[in-house]
Amino acid sequence: MSTHARGDLRRLDRDECLTRLAQDSVGRLAVITAGGSPAVFPVNYALDGETIIIRTDPGTKLADGPRGPACFEIDEIDRNSREGWSVTATGRLEEVTPYQAAQVARARALDLEPWADGPKTHFLRLVPSWISGRSVER
Amino acid sequence: MSTHARGDLRRLDRDECLTRLAQDSVGRLAVITAGGSPAVFPVNYALDGETIIIRTDPGTKLADGPRGPACFEIDEIDRNSREGWSVTATGRLEEVTPYQAAQVARARALDLEPWADGPKTHFLRLVPSWISGRSVER
Repeated sequence: MSTHARGDLRRLDRDECLTRLAQDSVGRLAVITAGGSPAVFPVNYALDGETIIIRTDPGTKLADGPRGPACFEIDEIDRNSREGWSVTATGRLEEVTPYQAAQVARARALDLEPWADGPKTHFLRLVPSWISGRSVER
Repeated sequence: MSTHARGDLRRLDRDECLTRLAQDSVGRLAVITAGGSPAVFPVNYALDGETIIIRTDPGTKLADGPRGPACFEIDEIDRNSREGWSVTATGRLEEVTPYQAAQVARARALDLEPWADGPKTHFLRLVPSWISGRSVER
């Protein structure tokens, strides 16, 4: 039995999605592992134009992420009012290699400090080919 | 240049992960679409034993999710203190079909009200084959 009024689902347009991506600093990166399963990692990030930049150490994200498409998601959820929004950006994930000196310099210049210990000297870049967002509002 | 002290990354054991899954009500479901890309959807959920139950309408989650493995993620992130934790559960996603009367009844008995409009008469079930969690603490 439903005891709460339902909210309205609204699509966010591309500009709204990019604005929210520019304002937030933590999201979730979903990649497909070598075993063929999706894996989700919370990451902090910075937006460079429309490109999502992530710092990381060697691991699943770096080893498996660049093999296929990836999805990056941010959201804000209010469990009390049962409202929220989310934005997803889907595209190919690429490592910014040390040979791409200008791009490494751009990535280093971003305000992108790791939260956890570890050198995190590698940069990943997701160039979205598809951005979408939705909200539930009352 | 690093201006913040880094946090310690800690693995959460299986019991901690299950406790956090039981206490939360909103997470993110990552499935692999028919096009081969990961797609992430915020969803509310309920835990039935160690099984994650999600209500949905026809769409990508229902059409593509049960074709392959899926990953469900919850987290709590404090952007100010730069601390947080996350739990992921990976496994096969199955639709609870109307023929599985007992399981439909169990799913219906859970406190699982949709936030957004729509009948949401379908139930998906993720039976985790792998649960892991980690936290960053200072």
